Amino acid sequence: MEERIKEACGVFGIYAPAGEQVANSVYYGLSSLQHRGQESCGIAVCDTKGPVGNMHVHRGMGLVNEVFKEENLRELKGNLGVGHVRYSTTGAAALNNAQPLVLHYIKGTLALAHNGNLVNTKELREELAKSGAIFQTTTDSEVIAYYIARERVNTRTVEEAILRTAEKIKGAYGLVIASPQKLIGVRDPLGLKPLCLGKRGEAYIFASESCALSAIGAEFVRDVRPGEIVTISEGQVFSNTELCQKQQAHCVFEYIYFARLDSKIDGVSVYESRLKAGEALAKVYPAEADMVAGVPDSGITAAQGYAKASGIPFGMAFYKNSYVGRTFIKPTQEERESSVRLKLSVLEQAVKGKNLVLVDDSIVRGTTIANLIRLLKQAGAGKVHVRISSPPFLYPCYYGTDVPSNKQLLAVSHSTEEIRRMIGADSLGYMKVEDLAAMAEGLPLCKACFDNRYPTEI
Amino acid sequence: MEERIKEACGVFGIYAPAGEQVANSVYYGLSSLQHRGQESCGIAVCDTKGPVGNMHVHRGMGLVNEVFKEENLRELKGNLGVGHVRYSTTGAAALNNAQPLVLHYIKGTLALAHNGNLVNTKELREELAKSGAIFQTTTDSEVIAYYIARERVNTRTVEEAILRTAEKIKGAYGLVIASPQKLIGVRDPLGLKPLCLGKRGEAYIFASESCALSAIGAEFVRDVRPGEIVTISEGQVFSNTELCQKQQAHCVFEYIYFARLDSKIDGVSVYESRLKAGEALAKVYPAEADMVAGVPDSGITAAQGYAKASGIPFGMAFYKNSYVGRTFIKPTQEERESSVRLKLSVLEQAVKGKNLVLVDDSIVRGTTIANLIRLLKQAGAGKVHVRISSPPFLYPCYYGTDVPSNKQLLAVSHSTEEIRRMIGADSLGYMKVEDLAAMAEGLPLCKACFDNRYPTEI
Amino acid sequence: MEERIKEACGVFGIYAPAGEQVANSVYYGLSSLQHRGQESCGIAVCDTKGPVGNMHVHRGMGLVNEVFKEENLRELKGNLGVGHVRYSTTGAAALNNAQPLVLHYIKGTLALAHNGNLVNTKELREELAKSGAIFQTTTDSEVIAYYIARERVNTRTVEEAILRTAEKIKGAYGLVIASPQKLIGVRDPLGLKPLCLGKRGEAYIFASESCALSAIGAEFVRDVRPGEIVTISEGQVFSNTELCQKQQAHCVFEYIYFARLDSKIDGVSVYESRLKAGEALAKVYPAEADMVAGVPDSGITAAQGYAKASGIPFGMAFYKNSYVGRTFIKPTQEERESSVRLKLSVLEQAVKGKNLVLVDDSIVRGTTIANLIRLLKQAGAGKVHVRISSPPFLYPCYYGTDVPSNKQLLAVSHSTEEIRRMIGADSLGYMKVEDLAAMAEGLPLCKACFDNRYPTEI
Amino acid sequence: MEERIKEACGVFGIYAPAGEQVANSVYYGLSSLQHRGQESCGIAVCDTKGPVGNMHVHRGMGLVNEVFKEENLRELKGNLGVGHVRYSTTGAAALNNAQPLVLHYIKGTLALAHNGNLVNTKELREELAKSGAIFQTTTDSEVIAYYIARERVNTRTVEEAILRTAEKIKGAYGLVIASPQKLIGVRDPLGLKPLCLGKRGEAYIFASESCALSAIGAEFVRDVRPGEIVTISEGQVFSNTELCQKQQAHCVFEYIYFARLDSKIDGVSVYESRLKAGEALAKVYPAEADMVAGVPDSGITAAQGYAKASGIPFGMAFYKNSYVGRTFIKPTQEERESSVRLKLSVLEQAVKGKNLVLVDDSIVRGTTIANLIRLLKQAGAGKVHVRISSPPFLYPCYYGTDVPSNKQLLAVSHSTEEIRRMIGADSLGYMKVEDLAAMAEGLPLCKACFDNRYPTEI
Repeated sequence: MEERIKEACGVFGIYAPAGEQVANSVYYGLSSLQHRGQESCGIAVCDTKGPVGNMHVHRGMGLVNEVFKEENLRELKGNLGVGHVRYSTTGAAALNNAQPLVLHYIKGTLALAHNGNLVNTKELREELAKSGAIFQTTTDSEVIAYYIARERVNTRTVEEAILRTAEKIKGAYGLVIASPQKLIGVRDPLGLKPLCLGKRGEAYIFASESCALSAIGAEFVRDVRPGEIVTISEGQVFSNTELCQKQQAHCVFEYIYFARLDSKIDGVSVYESRLKAGEALAKVYPAEADMVAGVPDSGITAAQGYAKASGIPFGMAFYKNSYVGRTFIKPTQEERESSVRLKLSVLEQAVKGKNLVLVDDSIVRGTTIANLIRLLKQAGAGKVHVRISSPPFLYPCYYGTDVPSNKQLLAVSHSTEEIRRMIGADSLGYMKVEDLAAMAEGLPLCKACFDNRYPTEI
Repeated sequence: MEERIKEACGVFGIYAPAGEQVANSVYYGLSSLQHRGQESCGIAVCDTKGPVGNMHVHRGMGLVNEVFKEENLRELKGNLGVGHVRYSTTGAAALNNAQPLVLHYIKGTLALAHNGNLVNTKELREELAKSGAIFQTTTDSEVIAYYIARERVNTRTVEEAILRTAEKIKGAYGLVIASPQKLIGVRDPLGLKPLCLGKRGEAYIFASESCALSAIGAEFVRDVRPGEIVTISEGQVFSNTELCQKQQAHCVFEYIYFARLDSKIDGVSVYESRLKAGEALAKVYPAEADMVAGVPDSGITAAQGYAKASGIPFGMAFYKNSYVGRTFIKPTQEERESSVRLKLSVLEQAVKGKNLVLVDDSIVRGTTIANLIRLLKQAGAGKVHVRISSPPFLYPCYYGTDVPSNKQLLAVSHSTEEIRRMIGADSLGYMKVEDLAAMAEGLPLCKACFDNRYPTEI
Repeated sequence: MEERIKEACGVFGIYAPAGEQVANSVYYGLSSLQHRGQESCGIAVCDTKGPVGNMHVHRGMGLVNEVFKEENLRELKGNLGVGHVRYSTTGAAALNNAQPLVLHYIKGTLALAHNGNLVNTKELREELAKSGAIFQTTTDSEVIAYYIARERVNTRTVEEAILRTAEKIKGAYGLVIASPQKLIGVRDPLGLKPLCLGKRGEAYIFASESCALSAIGAEFVRDVRPGEIVTISEGQVFSNTELCQKQQAHCVFEYIYFARLDSKIDGVSVYESRLKAGEALAKVYPAEADMVAGVPDSGITAAQGYAKASGIPFGMAFYKNSYVGRTFIKPTQEERESSVRLKLSVLEQAVKGKNLVLVDDSIVRGTTIANLIRLLKQAGAGKVHVRISSPPFLYPCYYGTDVPSNKQLLAVSHSTEEIRRMIGADSLGYMKVEDLAAMAEGLPLCKACFDNRYPTEI
Repeated sequence: MEERIKEACGVFGIYAPAGEQVANSVYYGLSSLQHRGQESCGIAVCDTKGPVGNMHVHRGMGLVNEVFKEENLRELKGNLGVGHVRYSTTGAAALNNAQPLVLHYIKGTLALAHNGNLVNTKELREELAKSGAIFQTTTDSEVIAYYIARERVNTRTVEEAILRTAEKIKGAYGLVIASPQKLIGVRDPLGLKPLCLGKRGEAYIFASESCALSAIGAEFVRDVRPGEIVTISEGQVFSNTELCQKQQAHCVFEYIYFARLDSKIDGVSVYESRLKAGEALAKVYPAEADMVAGVPDSGITAAQGYAKASGIPFGMAFYKNSYVGRTFIKPTQEERESSVRLKLSVLEQAVKGKNLVLVDDSIVRGTTIANLIRLLKQAGAGKVHVRISSPPFLYPCYYGTDVPSNKQLLAVSHSTEEIRRMIGADSLGYMKVEDLAAMAEGLPLCKACFDNRYPTEI
């Protein structure tokens, strides 16, 4: 189960009237964005009427409900807060890289949470280092923070400094920034990373996905526009669209896999896009089968779409043990137990004697799907036709998605027929690149991991 | 989400050839039985060729993957092991009551794991106390252990002592006992609690449910017969059936809710029984609707059965946030977030403008289902017809199921129509008591919580 | 620093008027007895006006201030409490053996804390096992508890049951027992283990040592007499002296090393007894030296006595790093750091060019003292005359003191001259067995570890 | 016991030949400097032959043996390491401020540990902020790191950059810096903070105090000169003395209280300086008494000096419970136990009927000494003459010592006679400011906290 493509981060921010406490809402918002990053998380909160520099922050390694206890939330006093969930490569420096970044600069204190990857970090970092900068993390986000601080020296407002910074940084970003009296949301001009705006009573909220708004009982106002800088100040919303542009390239993987089923991103329902992916698969790769099943949980909705379009009944083929989580001790190679079987078990009564269509969202190394097909056949399933609701991965992502290296991408070195044989499927069909557009209702997409056409210089 | 009926325990035992290490297999087995008890757990292991009294035990509060780290498993050396997962009322004594119970007695050391409740504990405990016994826990299991020790003084084998004990104890029990050189499984004569036997290579396994056998790669051999004492000794299986009897009464709630979907208990597939429950509901309470949905996860399969029998398409109405678990900080009454909404969110695109059948397995206090119906309607659903795959709870359980007290059971004091109104459903239908038999393929069932006909004296 | 003789336990009990909370006082009392046991500890408290069975207990591995947090103490509600600190051999069962033991028996609930070892445990345990008893720990204390429960069946009061039990158990014990409405202190007839009675306002207290009374602001009332059973009930003190006898044998090691310097046991000040030990050494083994120093902390007072009697000035030769404690990572054999040097460093200015008398309380394996002498000489000390304030250990202790096995006792296999050479001392003198009596003001002592004359059958 | 003057930090660095592992030596070194800071600590280690940027760091809140477990040390691989122990005001940002600071800059990675306080931080920080710097901590140390990074842009070596930085920063500092291939020690030109150089085999070591050298088996080479920059590179020692100057001002409080008894700082033995302080007190404030005692542990050595000079015998008046540490739950105002009595108890036999001289190193609020005098009198002591081995605190320290605010300094608002009455002493004498010089063998001292003559602008 180790082989998934991983999103790098989720961000959240809320600005409530002075006197209200927002730490718990950030906690609940982050819990709803937990699927975007499970390695570390953090919350920074300040009181907009409090003394200068009263930014409280708590960060830690682990899930939101592991890192935050009631006493931590109690200590995060204030009405303006930002939060972050993160996935990143592990290592000793991991806690150090946890966000939000809290920094003191010429104009006071600032907390910053960032989703995405820049493509010109190296140049920017070198430029800063040459003028004597020091870095305490290895993140892009510190580079962004630095530029904001530098620009702030010669600008009238923090928004201006952010605008100047946004002109310099290239790549993908959804940013939420709490400057002591303002909450600011920024999105990269291509719209690679999502960010939306919500409202609950007098409070305004930014979140990577709309599901975080519903979770805290806020209503969705709108998506932040690609390139837009939205500022919440004294209960009002200000928008700067100087960097907005025609060209857009929304990450297709948000729809295929990253985003939560109940989110709507840039006007497109994630749930519907996955249904449509299944429908498209049914049209391109029909199959004779008795039941359509999805690999839990990521393939379920596309399987329902396939079922609907094909007329073959949808059913559950697996039971998922939700207690087998992150901290579970995995069996070693020698042990007779297997990670896949401990996590997913076949519903024998549901599959015995049936020909199946099995839908999943992606194949990376192929070991999991191969295991599942073997388990289905052991349980008496007849033919197993595999349908994948994304095209084969062939190219790296530079915008913050953790695609494994080329060597681990099966599709780079093997034909579809070879993969079919390796995983033991009776047929195998991948989503076609040309069908992706329809899936997202015509939204301009970044599909570089499939077609090598990157929307920026690399 | 707090209002579920709770199972009390799950048990597991394995006896592998001397020299093999079984601690990890017990860990994986318990992980597969985790749904039967999440409060505490424990593993006891011994080496059948080791010195007398080499029984290693580790117990703790929490889930299996919280209580056991790799170093704990490493220290549990040996080829004979038993494990236990437990739900119980909380309190200071909780850890003290965690199982397996390990006790030293005249013939050496014995580890015991028990699922179920006795109905004559009070009398048995008094009898023991009168002769000077001391108790260090408040569990039935210690009473059982005591009787075994007493009987062992005058019997030739531990099986005999267990048989004498089984003649005295009344109620529900699935027991797994590791005596230093034997592994013994015992089931109450009515078969209230499940217990099955499996095999992997030379190793024999007992488990509360067959899913634990599949999880560790073992094959299902058979269910232990109600009243049977099965002994594994020197790689062979011995059976004592002196207490087997005609009358049987298998707990119906294993099929409705407790057991895992992929288990088969006493020859009946849990998955199929839930499908049938849904089918029966469709026949008795048809509805005009566009989609049948289940409350995740417990109502999903019955919903599929309803869909199949009614011809109305099955669909998902909710997204479940699996990160909202046991340690999650719940919102207070004053906060605008709600526990239900944080855990389950509506897939608006799936339900908008549709009339729905919503299937769940039970109603206890009714607050969760009422919240879900409200969320569905807010998301634009039309009518919501609720179907419950069990009859209304009316009577307490004395056999180890944690049914809330009468005051909390909505059905005790309210008519179905009143409940319908309270939860905001457009129609409401409960499974009929007379349909339960068909659901379990004619197996004799204990349905006392619905019909007040207890299979034993109370 | 690993080679000390270790005491097994300390006990504490307090009975305050109903309505008062005693958990914190037990915590402070145990902190003052921490030197008697650092492996595990526990507190059990009940409310004498509360419902039957309201005995709250918390036990854990580690020091008192590691095991108890404020929330633990808050949950231990009640006016009657007992506590225990323990040293024991490590192992998986350690937590299981932690005390106080809380047990439910025919007359309700009882908490028991025990210091000492019985010498007829094996027989008693067998007798119990033969009649069907089960044991959940491997402690003597459970055996004592069992006998009390058995006797209680046929006796009018718990004191009577304790009396009957005391007639059966042989060996060393200081017991504190909380029966729901009484606090009872019991001491073995030989007085091997200490126990005293104190008072603070309306509350009565039992403690292993008087230092625990001073710590909590209580005044010392008297020592419990050897063989006496003292009962606190309804604010009054009752005494049963049926088992008191002429023969007494107080453990000499309490004075030499175990007890705290500020305690007074059986009328003898520990501080003064150590001063006298040093004086005796000065008379028997005079030395020509410039300074008398003690090994911190155990040899300091005897060194002061030696200085006083000899006229040679007392001084500190070492600085002790108090941060090097239990959880400190010790250097491996290969590392250039040494445990001794990390813990104790020489005050070079104090010892350079001086001939020294170095006093310690005992030599076990001799490695520590050898290291210290080497460090002193490296720092420029001249002659180092070692004086030990106890005779050489030659025989095992059966009463609860953890004397290393014969093989590790240097004095068993080596003459004093050989030891002197091995440790690099210029002269070496051990306390004479015949001088021990004077040290304890004529109190009848158990000196079996030195002279093989055990006061009981073994 | 809360009222002590607190040192801010201790630093340590070691450079061993490539291939050796130094993490454990840093751990032991820090353990020996633990008295200089107990709030947080950290170790950074790199392999000088490893890839660029291989600096491993682990920091945490708490004592060295709480923060570092064996696995942490194992992961800190390398032959060049620096460590830090810290005391600081508590607060949410505490962990963030823990050192060593690890920073990435134009020339690679650098780890920095700093003891002391600058007096021109505010100006320096503003200067940096004006050019766009961001700060992630609130420490002086980050300011120093920043300047080094800035200067490094235009200098040939890191030593040069440090020299340029040292010209700018004013105040007190003992710095240890690990640049990937060099270990550098720097001391402020006045020598306010100590730093010394040691050697063990081929390895060189810097430490705040010489006791850390002895602890790890290294030999003392020399003190780093005030204003000197010492560089260890390729096994050789280089010295830059450009900033050395005539004026020096060594912190007198190192001798009075901060430094460990077995350290030698700038050629003066701490042990001897405290003996001399006691001797000076004996001459200026003689007393008629039977015994001289010190308050453990800080007053013991001065008490020995008083005893020696006065001819009155030295003795111990208190027993100190070493288990009452940082995490101990302190009694509330209402409880009858007292913090002082739990920590220190009177040796009644030692003081009863005696007139005493009681020596301590300082009085801050006076509550502890008042409590101790009361305990002594309750135990039967006659007169208690208090002698304090430092002059009264009257002025704040700007160089890194945590002197309480004026309001808490008893001596600011009370005469010596008033204080004597408040604490219940029979006489009271403070060290004279003019005697301090002799105590430190004529070393030029900073005594500003006593005489308001600060050696720098403030």
